[in-house]
Amino acid sequence: MTTARHTIHQTSVIAALLDGVYDGETTVGSLRRRGDFGIGTFEGLDGELILLDDTCYRIRDDGTATVAADGEGVPYAVVTRFEPHLSFEITGRHTRAEVTALIDEKLGSANYMYAVRVDGVYERMTVRAVHVQQQPYRPLVQATAEQKVTEFTDVSGTVVGFRTPAFEEGLSVPGYHAHVLLDERRSGGHVLDHVMLHGRVQVCVGTDLHLELPRTPEFAQANLDPEDLREQVDQAES
Amino acid sequence: MTTARHTIHQTSVIAALLDGVYDGETTVGSLRRRGDFGIGTFEGLDGELILLDDTCYRIRDDGTATVAADGEGVPYAVVTRFEPHLSFEITGRHTRAEVTALIDEKLGSANYMYAVRVDGVYERMTVRAVHVQQQPYRPLVQATAEQKVTEFTDVSGTVVGFRTPAFEEGLSVPGYHAHVLLDERRSGGHVLDHVMLHGRVQVCVGTDLHLELPRTPEFAQANLDPEDLREQVDQAES
Repeated sequence: MTTARHTIHQTSVIAALLDGVYDGETTVGSLRRRGDFGIGTFEGLDGELILLDDTCYRIRDDGTATVAADGEGVPYAVVTRFEPHLSFEITGRHTRAEVTALIDEKLGSANYMYAVRVDGVYERMTVRAVHVQQQPYRPLVQATAEQKVTEFTDVSGTVVGFRTPAFEEGLSVPGYHAHVLLDERRSGGHVLDHVMLHGRVQVCVGTDLHLELPRTPEFAQANLDPEDLREQVDQAES
Repeated sequence: MTTARHTIHQTSVIAALLDGVYDGETTVGSLRRRGDFGIGTFEGLDGELILLDDTCYRIRDDGTATVAADGEGVPYAVVTRFEPHLSFEITGRHTRAEVTALIDEKLGSANYMYAVRVDGVYERMTVRAVHVQQQPYRPLVQATAEQKVTEFTDVSGTVVGFRTPAFEEGLSVPGYHAHVLLDERRSGGHVLDHVMLHGRVQVCVGTDLHLELPRTPEFAQANLDPEDLREQVDQAES
């Protein structure tokens, strides 16, 4: 456990995305003032967002990554100023479930927020990216039902993710939620599964959460208390 | 809806209290640096905490309120620097359910956090206070099973409460959660029910949440993902 306090910043809540609130009041530039590492999505669900080493990337559903401008709108994101409080190497062939289990062992507690960076070599990396939505927006489980899945083989890249405690269920995605940049940051997506050959793991421990709720009519009027929230998150994010 | 951003500060999460994490790393003095209005509990569950007009009060299970010193430990609290973004009068005899329904109508959205202050005259005010616990601590539902209930009649006082959105279920108490100071702030408790004759309602809209997790071994190792979380909260807080 780190002794320093460290803040994770979050814009909006996962319950709002589930209800089709795909426009926010935050921008890429605003995220970059709060952190240099993070994940999220863009206005209209127009691609997967990755913030890595202070550069923000957009990954569209053809799997290509491009740099996103500071003015782009962001309805949902989790970011932090990444500090490696803990780092270790993983060698040998491991599935994603094995990698996350190894990380869990090192953390020692499931009750904090963790920003997790893995620079690795992958035999296989399976990702998805969402397709831009048109208004009136559909719920997230309908939008992600049409997600495009891409499978990369023999690639290297950086996984940018968070491990979130279960008590943040309505706010965020409990457990691991990660996006990846591959091929010198020219491609990637939302990580569905992978087989890693070796990698370097760095973990930043979050003791504080700063949550900003959008002051938009769409957020104010959304239904953020669906009975099947956990099922919808599982369906939309895996 | 207010146009200004306003932050609600929270120490620890309700899931930790449910699991018997009754010692924190925060103090009354630290709370008072973050806000002048709020509710919580004290180390060892030693009374109900109310922060009102920058003074912190402890209400023990005999219903008496005393001022709490800055050095006192706080395992769980929600506080803010109260600004009345909205205020209105309620006249005529109303039950607590009727008062909260009237407030809900004025809010217009269930998706933000609201600090709610009601200065009122009450025909009846029913409160509880918890009894100080000894280590090893029992779960909250067991501790509150022995709470002492006090009924006051024909009193005036100030209700200090928060209305919390459902998506914060694991963090806080969804819906209304309030403590009260009565009789020139010499008595009070955790509000269970009341009949109000008239009152002035002031609401402060929270668009941002700052959550601080305790860096204690007890918090790190607690089970913060019980299957029956909502049932436990309902049982412990009503």
